[in-house]
Amino acid sequence: MPPDLADRFDPALAARMQGADPASAGGLPAFLGIEVTECSPGVLAARVDVVPALLTPFGAAHGGVLAVLVDHVLGAVCYPVIPRGAWAATTEFKVNYLAPVREGILEARAEIIALGNRIAVVCIEARSNGDRVGLAQGTVTIRAPIPPPA
Amino acid sequence: MPPDLADRFDPALAARMQGADPASAGGLPAFLGIEVTECSPGVLAARVDVVPALLTPFGAAHGGVLAVLVDHVLGAVCYPVIPRGAWAATTEFKVNYLAPVREGILEARAEIIALGNRIAVVCIEARSNGDRVGLAQGTVTIRAPIPPPA
Amino acid sequence: MPPDLADRFDPALAARMQGADPASAGGLPAFLGIEVTECSPGVLAARVDVVPALLTPFGAAHGGVLAVLVDHVLGAVCYPVIPRGAWAATTEFKVNYLAPVREGILEARAEIIALGNRIAVVCIEARSNGDRVGLAQGTVTIRAPIPPPA
Amino acid sequence: MPPDLADRFDPALAARMQGADPASAGGLPAFLGIEVTECSPGVLAARVDVVPALLTPFGAAHGGVLAVLVDHVLGAVCYPVIPRGAWAATTEFKVNYLAPVREGILEARAEIIALGNRIAVVCIEARSNGDRVGLAQGTVTIRAPIPPPA
Repeated sequence: MPPDLADRFDPALAARMQGADPASAGGLPAFLGIEVTECSPGVLAARVDVVPALLTPFGAAHGGVLAVLVDHVLGAVCYPVIPRGAWAATTEFKVNYLAPVREGILEARAEIIALGNRIAVVCIEARSNGDRVGLAQGTVTIRAPIPPPA
Repeated sequence: MPPDLADRFDPALAARMQGADPASAGGLPAFLGIEVTECSPGVLAARVDVVPALLTPFGAAHGGVLAVLVDHVLGAVCYPVIPRGAWAATTEFKVNYLAPVREGILEARAEIIALGNRIAVVCIEARSNGDRVGLAQGTVTIRAPIPPPA
Repeated sequence: MPPDLADRFDPALAARMQGADPASAGGLPAFLGIEVTECSPGVLAARVDVVPALLTPFGAAHGGVLAVLVDHVLGAVCYPVIPRGAWAATTEFKVNYLAPVREGILEARAEIIALGNRIAVVCIEARSNGDRVGLAQGTVTIRAPIPPPA
Repeated sequence: MPPDLADRFDPALAARMQGADPASAGGLPAFLGIEVTECSPGVLAARVDVVPALLTPFGAAHGGVLAVLVDHVLGAVCYPVIPRGAWAATTEFKVNYLAPVREGILEARAEIIALGNRIAVVCIEARSNGDRVGLAQGTVTIRAPIPPPA
């Protein structure tokens, strides 16, 4: 963890993120029921319950489930340590699928490895039922907020 | 395109994939309404209508939308050129986000760059409203099917 | 190719890069004998002669040969289209090895896919003896020059 | 670390790798002087002395130096835990550059995250003078040896 993450940490925001109702987010995170389970300086964990509707005809979770979770925690881990109102936009990420997930909880844990004024690099490990099932690494660009279309 | 993709191509499967009702797939692809718009030897294109429910509070499509689409076409482009019943499992992919998508159609076009007995490498370009918005590259492992849990 | 690359293109710099003696660069590029064979707006190709000294005990080129070439063209393709004196620093790249290279010429061709004020995204294809042997994708940060240590 | 790496570990090979003279390897590893500093089950560290010849005109180590080191440890960490004579071929890797390296020792530490019969996934962290300067993740295919050309 870069040394000054604790100084930049916004515990109130972290508490809101951790307590949020997954359904309230809307869109993809609500569809998957992404729930933040840990949010500390430079670290964020979130999980999805791999219900049968998320499996492919081959009986494993669609790769997109892990991909969404990776993209989600990649940005989310940044918000408590960047200025209020700034936007953590995914520049890119890479994910390895280590084992199929067939049921139970899929949890991803993101850790900020480097944080500059404009760029953060994050490492993400995903586990399910005690096994590592995914490993990812991504780059986030920190931007001033872009207002939504009127 | 590797030279022998046309010989391995299963046009009947391709036609079924292209004509499939997005809602019939269930899970993430149905939630996003992923529709296959082109399926030829070594190439597959699919698209998503970026409805407001898929936007984040910042007004851009959640990065997970492109991530799911990338993962989806990465595997789907392989099925018409691998043996019936084989499984195209994502080993890994990497995606760059080139521009935010705020509305309209998001389309990803996958092209098989290399295909061996066990591994395929695929390049994917995503466009929206005429602009390139994503670029991805991934590795797929071709496996005999794993039966779903009883 | 992004539409305005031709307007930003510095043909004098491109000509110098294309005509440069590989030995004059020093360091890794000189050791490998990297020679720029094409330099046009948004595109740069360079090649290495895969001499026996670059093979591993298994008789294939060390993966580092392609990795250096990828990193090299990733930055080099940017210089003729960024301000004089700016620095094209590799943020990250990803490379797939498609086939071993045992002899002959290894050539990589880089194409700028997106170019903003601060970030460029580049796609790179490597070929040897007519076959695709590598595919890469990378992100470059454009920075004001950092002076070398005194 | 996957649980059975210790059982597969070949300590004699590891000892040879750790004690090898960098110059004896030839090619790129000898040019860079890559020295293995640690080799235990599932972990391998190696380092390069960043001499002035490895710097670019901007005064930072050429990105290729880290790229070669990453590719090198990615394969090397596998050899002591795969069958004698098998070949650990890089399928792909992705590397993030976190900070420029201007002098001193560059060290990369590879750790096997997953190891199956055919594929290994490896995470690599690079440090210099106490700082993290690179993060990488790669996929290795384990193959029976391919004899060098006659």
